[in-house]
Amino acid sequence: MRMIDVIAAKRDGHVLTREQMQYFVDGYVAGSIPDYQASALLMAIYLKGMSHQETAELTDIMAKSGDMVDLSGIEGIKVDKHSTGGVGDKTTLILAPIVAACGANLAKMSGRGLGHTGGTLDKLEAIPGFRINLSPEEFIESVNRVGCAVVGQTGNIAPADKKIYALRDVTATVGSIPLIASSIMSKKLASGADKLVLDVKVGSGALMKTLAEARELAELMVQIGERNGRETIALLTDMDTPLGNNIGNLLEVREAWATLNGHGPADLTQICLILSAHMLRLAGKGTYDECFTSAKAAISTGVAAAKFLEMIRNQGGDPSVLLSTDETSSPSTAVSSPSSAVSSHPVYATESGWITSMDTEALGISSMLLGAGRQTKDDVIDYQAGIILNLKTGMQVSEGDLLGTLITTDPTKFSEAETVFRSAYHLGSAEPAPTPLILEQIDKNGIKKF
Amino acid sequence: MRMIDVIAAKRDGHVLTREQMQYFVDGYVAGSIPDYQASALLMAIYLKGMSHQETAELTDIMAKSGDMVDLSGIEGIKVDKHSTGGVGDKTTLILAPIVAACGANLAKMSGRGLGHTGGTLDKLEAIPGFRINLSPEEFIESVNRVGCAVVGQTGNIAPADKKIYALRDVTATVGSIPLIASSIMSKKLASGADKLVLDVKVGSGALMKTLAEARELAELMVQIGERNGRETIALLTDMDTPLGNNIGNLLEVREAWATLNGHGPADLTQICLILSAHMLRLAGKGTYDECFTSAKAAISTGVAAAKFLEMIRNQGGDPSVLLSTDETSSPSTAVSSPSSAVSSHPVYATESGWITSMDTEALGISSMLLGAGRQTKDDVIDYQAGIILNLKTGMQVSEGDLLGTLITTDPTKFSEAETVFRSAYHLGSAEPAPTPLILEQIDKNGIKKF
Repeated sequence: MRMIDVIAAKRDGHVLTREQMQYFVDGYVAGSIPDYQASALLMAIYLKGMSHQETAELTDIMAKSGDMVDLSGIEGIKVDKHSTGGVGDKTTLILAPIVAACGANLAKMSGRGLGHTGGTLDKLEAIPGFRINLSPEEFIESVNRVGCAVVGQTGNIAPADKKIYALRDVTATVGSIPLIASSIMSKKLASGADKLVLDVKVGSGALMKTLAEARELAELMVQIGERNGRETIALLTDMDTPLGNNIGNLLEVREAWATLNGHGPADLTQICLILSAHMLRLAGKGTYDECFTSAKAAISTGVAAAKFLEMIRNQGGDPSVLLSTDETSSPSTAVSSPSSAVSSHPVYATESGWITSMDTEALGISSMLLGAGRQTKDDVIDYQAGIILNLKTGMQVSEGDLLGTLITTDPTKFSEAETVFRSAYHLGSAEPAPTPLILEQIDKNGIKKF
Repeated sequence: MRMIDVIAAKRDGHVLTREQMQYFVDGYVAGSIPDYQASALLMAIYLKGMSHQETAELTDIMAKSGDMVDLSGIEGIKVDKHSTGGVGDKTTLILAPIVAACGANLAKMSGRGLGHTGGTLDKLEAIPGFRINLSPEEFIESVNRVGCAVVGQTGNIAPADKKIYALRDVTATVGSIPLIASSIMSKKLASGADKLVLDVKVGSGALMKTLAEARELAELMVQIGERNGRETIALLTDMDTPLGNNIGNLLEVREAWATLNGHGPADLTQICLILSAHMLRLAGKGTYDECFTSAKAAISTGVAAAKFLEMIRNQGGDPSVLLSTDETSSPSTAVSSPSSAVSSHPVYATESGWITSMDTEALGISSMLLGAGRQTKDDVIDYQAGIILNLKTGMQVSEGDLLGTLITTDPTKFSEAETVFRSAYHLGSAEPAPTPLILEQIDKNGIKKF
């Protein structure tokens, strides 16, 4: 087989055979196929697409390019959740203790943030002492004892994806839906869960800006999961506004804690309950409605909050960073007494009207500029930095109202961050129609609209 | 400017700006843009195409990436000819002396052969002593004195094309018509001629297998020439059968000599007269019909043959390799007394019928296998090797008739070469319709069909 023939086949719109994709992935990981041939193939895939079956096979090959995590040491059905990433998305911090509190086991590998989106690992590391690097044995043992653990990648997970993703990043081939789906799902297949709940974000703060492309990605990922023997369900959820009110690592941990104590923002609380209910149902804990009720009870009884503290302590974290603030306060007052090194900067509205939409990506960038995120992989994170939103889409605003508060340990960053923050608010004269939180649900049986 | 944005623009089907193409070509030649970004762009160009104006600008930028040859030291209008390459195409060897004999000047840079197609430089080097490497001064002085000179590239001609072509060769992006056109025309623009005659080959032995794609290439090259201030005319000519009867370097030199002496095959003679007439007309030597008559007279009076000998001697060649054979003999008997080191192998028909078509590329490959061409750039050529065709498309054949003779200095090559040679003949029961030699003529005024 020759790589040039594989490139030519995709260039001419053919479906690649499993043997051709295996040849490409093996050769590219081994270094015998050079970057310039791989990038020509990736551009051909971007422009010519891939069939569902073809993408499912490529994903399986990419998953098997490295270690396949063995979770057989954990009892019961292992359900995983993946979010395609957004702004203010701290759902994993809330889901994990709820699911564990309801008797399911969650062995979760998460990632770091880049650009305008945050990453669960960065959020957890805002908790002093929290260890995201557990050994495989510690990881399994933690899940069995606590019911949940959230760690970084253990072992050599999908090295083909790492190498292909790095090349896509510099060759304008990131936005290909088959390539996005195979990248996400190769890591999920390798991570060992039996069943998957996918949270596909749609809107100005998400990778998928439109419902149509989010639906295409979700359908493809469900196909990939099902064709590789993993029951998979995808929820298309709104990311036209940030989730909750807090953006930034420690700020989001605190908002997660507030939510687990029953004081979370309505949108965040609702989505966490829905995602938890789907995960619990897949784990065999009852019907969707029964699982939803259990999840709700886990919050109201305080069991989920206790499970969060147990998980933090189990991984070496010091939860006093949560407990030292008033647990009953609203998220926006939860940081009203920042440590001496932290500066906060309120931003007030300069005109009146209805907030008709928000550029959520701009809010993520503003938070990144404050120090909460990385522009490049080597940037160091300011865990205390971020934004507390006071007003969001659908609310009425009068000149002089507080839009939000910017927080950082480096006050020189306020000026640029404020400019970007302000640009995110779009005002109009009429109240906008409300956007549903869950747009669609996609599984092997098709699409269910809400 | 960032290369990733240039790639994304073409990926999304936009017309690239001159600045974007300049940035790419400059950066790629300088090495600051890596191969993997260039190959992603080339694949995007392959699949999304380029406009005529965009291709003309890219060609100009590629031409100016190196030396622009100065032919101002040669008197009169400088007309160049380019063939897209075929099997048995020895027209340059015949045209050059005809055009010079008729009073125009031809300063020609030619190339080498690769794969199934031959190259003029290899053919000339079959003449002992012939120097294809003249200094720029010798080159100009030779053209002024003799009227024609044929040399290899002098100086650093279109280095961007060299680098881009090498990358296309390994990334399945060779077959893009805008990239083929810009590659050919960048070298022509840099080579300094004022006017161009393009011989675009169509058929089984050519790069362009169909009339439609050959027409697209020809129209684009005419546009590139005209938009860059060079009057350009393209002829679409048949390459479904080899041109003339001889394939192979010394064999083709001898057939050129026979043609210059009025004993050439009809197809080869006719196409050389037509191409010469177009070149002479562009050089201001009269109407097309007047120029055709002059070209014909240059042969019948022996002036063109004498000019060929003069050109060979001027470049250090020993024409005795031509003169030692019977000049009046047919090409197939011209090598009837090969030197002792040469073996010939007649191939006879094993069935009867009409030759309805020939796989001309297979004939080129058979000749290459005999030693007349290169499979890779480093192969050494056997100048005496090749094929003399006895029967071609449109002829009737009886079992036992001589199809052709294979010639080589290495008789171990006959077996494989014969298999490929035989595969090129397609027999049928009815006489095929004749194929015209010149299919279409394309210039700035449009298409003229024949």
